[in-house]
Amino acid sequence: MNKRFQNIKKKNPLLDDNWIDDFAPYLMNRIMGRYNESLRLKMTSLDLTTPKMRALAVLSATQGMLINELAVYAVVEQSTLSRALEQLDTDGLIKREIDSIDTRATRVYLTPLGLEAFKSLWPDMLTSYNEMFNDINDDEKSQFIVTLQKILKNIRKHEF
Amino acid sequence: MNKRFQNIKKKNPLLDDNWIDDFAPYLMNRIMGRYNESLRLKMTSLDLTTPKMRALAVLSATQGMLINELAVYAVVEQSTLSRALEQLDTDGLIKREIDSIDTRATRVYLTPLGLEAFKSLWPDMLTSYNEMFNDINDDEKSQFIVTLQKILKNIRKHEF
Repeated sequence: MNKRFQNIKKKNPLLDDNWIDDFAPYLMNRIMGRYNESLRLKMTSLDLTTPKMRALAVLSATQGMLINELAVYAVVEQSTLSRALEQLDTDGLIKREIDSIDTRATRVYLTPLGLEAFKSLWPDMLTSYNEMFNDINDDEKSQFIVTLQKILKNIRKHEF
Repeated sequence: MNKRFQNIKKKNPLLDDNWIDDFAPYLMNRIMGRYNESLRLKMTSLDLTTPKMRALAVLSATQGMLINELAVYAVVEQSTLSRALEQLDTDGLIKREIDSIDTRATRVYLTPLGLEAFKSLWPDMLTSYNEMFNDINDDEKSQFIVTLQKILKNIRKHEF
């Protein structure tokens, strides 16, 4: 925390002063808040929202996900995701198809237009991503990603 | 991504297959989604929401923040934060005071009751935190936190 707060900071009887600056969930939350904010202008220009953008991103890596799987990957509540998919379908960015084996299940696919939308967002995502790792060397970056993967494996509820 | 998807995965013309599994913002988003989810039951039992919980957490580390500063630290939009603070004030968990020098500015303080509420949430936060770093040794954990701090410094817009 910056100097301005030093003089108004009061000892927390529960925790060390400044505990929050070393608290990984707090730091990740701040980083993700900033990352999402950095994409907002571009998303708006493409008529996308954070849930829509996340769905397109996940589908660009894996086509044909089930809706409940997509909700986990995209970290969007299922009701919010359903609305987002409805709009993306209307706009022609995704299509939904009944699974060939389980006819109760719906799979979601990116259309060529959806891929185009994601492609035009990608340079901004890459810019924000590179900004994150500015002056962080490849070894440190690789190690960081390895640790993130371990953490996700530690806390995820789903087997994916 | 798990085996079930291997056979339905189609080559992405834009990106390598599985790019998302190495994409730090995606991993952080998944982790934070799971972390927030793990606290939801406890938050509900305390009549707290994620914005309220974040405000209490930040105030527990630094009393007397200005509202716009608190919005940045807690990663909550200012209008959402204002509603959360209104409710926290009604419930006696925080108090708002006019700044002694700048009478247009409002500073926010945790009350003893607010600290109690945060204290009863803290064991759950700690459990989730420890679960994250299960089987990750102290060196790796420290390095991870150092990298997070560098990333936040790289992308933050505010000087704190």
